[in-house]
Amino acid sequence: MSELRWDPLKNNWTIITKGRGRRPPDFLQRRTQVKMSACPFCSGNEEKTPPEIYAFRPNDSQANQPGWQVRVIPNKFPALRIEGELNNRAEGLYDRMNGIGAHEVIIEHPEHDRSMADLTIEELAEVLKAYRTRMLDLRRDSRFRYIFVFKNFGIEASANVPHSHSQLIAVPLIPPMIATELSTCREHFQRKERCLFCDRHSQERQSKERVVRDDVNFIVYAPYASSFPFELMVAPLEHSHDYTLQTDQQLLLLADTLRDTLRRLRSILRDPPYSFILHSAPPTHLRWGRPDYWASLPSDYHWHIEIAPKLTNVAGFEWGSGFQMNPTPPEEAAEFLRNADLSVT
Amino acid sequence: MSELRWDPLKNNWTIITKGRGRRPPDFLQRRTQVKMSACPFCSGNEEKTPPEIYAFRPNDSQANQPGWQVRVIPNKFPALRIEGELNNRAEGLYDRMNGIGAHEVIIEHPEHDRSMADLTIEELAEVLKAYRTRMLDLRRDSRFRYIFVFKNFGIEASANVPHSHSQLIAVPLIPPMIATELSTCREHFQRKERCLFCDRHSQERQSKERVVRDDVNFIVYAPYASSFPFELMVAPLEHSHDYTLQTDQQLLLLADTLRDTLRRLRSILRDPPYSFILHSAPPTHLRWGRPDYWASLPSDYHWHIEIAPKLTNVAGFEWGSGFQMNPTPPEEAAEFLRNADLSVT
Repeated sequence: MSELRWDPLKNNWTIITKGRGRRPPDFLQRRTQVKMSACPFCSGNEEKTPPEIYAFRPNDSQANQPGWQVRVIPNKFPALRIEGELNNRAEGLYDRMNGIGAHEVIIEHPEHDRSMADLTIEELAEVLKAYRTRMLDLRRDSRFRYIFVFKNFGIEASANVPHSHSQLIAVPLIPPMIATELSTCREHFQRKERCLFCDRHSQERQSKERVVRDDVNFIVYAPYASSFPFELMVAPLEHSHDYTLQTDQQLLLLADTLRDTLRRLRSILRDPPYSFILHSAPPTHLRWGRPDYWASLPSDYHWHIEIAPKLTNVAGFEWGSGFQMNPTPPEEAAEFLRNADLSVT
Repeated sequence: MSELRWDPLKNNWTIITKGRGRRPPDFLQRRTQVKMSACPFCSGNEEKTPPEIYAFRPNDSQANQPGWQVRVIPNKFPALRIEGELNNRAEGLYDRMNGIGAHEVIIEHPEHDRSMADLTIEELAEVLKAYRTRMLDLRRDSRFRYIFVFKNFGIEASANVPHSHSQLIAVPLIPPMIATELSTCREHFQRKERCLFCDRHSQERQSKERVVRDDVNFIVYAPYASSFPFELMVAPLEHSHDYTLQTDQQLLLLADTLRDTLRRLRSILRDPPYSFILHSAPPTHLRWGRPDYWASLPSDYHWHIEIAPKLTNVAGFEWGSGFQMNPTPPEEAAEFLRNADLSVT
C-alpha cells in the first residue's frame, strides 16, 4: 500500500508509492558523455572565462593564471546580474522587479576529469571554504536577501560544462523554499523552544532506520517524506544556523562526510546525476536599523545540505498538485546506502 | 536584463531570464518513439486492462468489447488505491496516512496513433465529458478531498503507454498547489468582492500581449509569471468555479479551443512533450454537516486548464529555491503561438 507522509520542515506531503520500480537497479541510467574541446574551466584556459573573483592558490601564483586549486568566476550567462537597481514595481495585478543578483561558478579542481567524489578530503575542504568566503563577501551587499550554493552533476542541459563545478547565487528575495523552512522552524521554536532540525536528528538517531551515517559531527539521513528516491540530508549535529560560522576544522570534517556520502551514491546508483543545495540562515540586514522580519530568526534555523539524485521525471501529477511522488521508501534507500560498497569508483 | 515576476494566483516569483535560448527552434527535441507490441489501450485488446469503469459507446456495444470511443479504466499501477481506511497517524514529529484514493486512465480514442490534437472536436468533447462524469462519480466518496485530471504527452518515463490517454486522480488531501490557489483567490475575493481569475482575464484582454486566443467563450494566454516556456492557461471567460457544471455545449466549445491550442503548440514546437492539468473547485463535504473550511470557497474560485510544454530541465536551482527560471518571456511565447501556422501537423 502506498503512503502519504508529511514533513514538518517542508510542510508538505509526499506520496511514497512503493511497488513500482524502486530499487537501485531500476534507476541505472546511461550517462551521456558531453565532449568539449578546450574546456574553459580547465587549468591553462583561464583567459576563456571572466576574470576570477576568488581563487585558492597554494603556490601563490598570479590571478587568472594556472596554479589555482579552486577558482570562482562570474557565470558567463548569469540568471541574475549584479549591476543596476531593483526597480520593484506593479503592473496591474502583477509585480515585477529587475533581475538583480549575483551568479558565480565555483570550479572545484583544475583537472577536467575529477568529480567531487574524487577529490581528496583536503581538496574538497577548500571548495567548502570557497563557499564560505563568497557567502560572506556577498552578504555585504544589502540588495541580496539570500545567498545559496547549488550543484548539478551529470544532468544534461543543466550542467552544460562537465568539468566539476558548483554555483552560487544571490537573490533579491527570500526564495519560497527557504521562506517555508524559516517559518516552520520558527513556529516549532516558538512553541517548544527547540530547533526543529535538532528534534528531527534526535528522532532519526533513535530510530536509526533512515540514517546513512552518523559520525558524531554530522548526520546523513534519508528524510522521512523524501520527495525523490535516495534523497539525503546532511547536517551538523551541533546546532548552528549559519554555514559561514563553521571553522576550517569543521569544514574538513564536513568534506569527509560529504565525500563519503557522494561515494555511497556513486556506488549503489553507478554515478547518478544529482543536484545538491546548501541552505543557511539568510543574512540579517541590521546595519540600516530597519525592522527586519528575519533579523531574529537565525537561532531557530539550522544550516544543512540536501542531495537529490535525479532519477525520476517530474510531470503532470507533481506539477499540477504540488505533491511529489516517490517510489522508494527512505528506509530502503538508507539501507542500500549504509551497505554501499565503497570500493566502487 | 532578466526580470523577477510575481503571480498573485500562485503567490510565487518566476525569474524570466531572457537571453539564453528562448525561441521555439532552441527547444526542438527529437521525439523518442516508444514501440509497443499489442498496446493494451487499443480497441480489440480490452481484456489486457482491468474492467472498464465508464465508456462512451455510440454503437451500444458491450462493456469491455470494441465499439467504444472513450474508455475509462483503473490504472493498473495506481499511485493510490481505492480500498481501505486512511488511518491518519503520527510518527514522532512526522505524520503519515495510507495511500487511499483513485487513479484512473481515460483512453481518449480507440486508435493507437491519434493524439489529442488529431481528434475531431466532437471526439475531444466526449473525452471532456468523460472527465466530467468521472469527477462527479468520485465526488460522492467522502474520503476524497480533491479530484483532478492530468495528461502527460510524449514525456519519456512518464507517459509509459504512447496511446493517447489522460489520467484522473482522487486524493485524500487538498494538494498544496490547489490550497495556494484557493487561498489566493479567497483573499482576493474577500478584499475586492471580485474573482481573481476574472480580474486577470480583464487585464489580459486589455493588454492583449499575452493572449493567444480569445473566442468570447474561452481565453487562452501565457501567464505573466509563466514558470515554463510556452506555458498556457485556458479558462472560461464566464465565471464558473466548477468544471462539472459545464454543459455539453460548453464542452464542445472547450474542445474547439483546446484542440486549437494544442495544434498551435504542435506547429511551433514540432509536437513537443507536454503536461496539462485541470483544476476545479474541490467537492464540498456538506452532507455530514461538519464544518468545512472549503465549503464556502467555490464561488471565489475559477476552474481552468494549465498546459506546460516540457522543454527545460528542473535542477538544483529550482529545487533548492522554489523559484522557477524561464528563458522565454510570455509575451514572446504568445506572439509565436498567435502566429502559428495551423496547417502544420
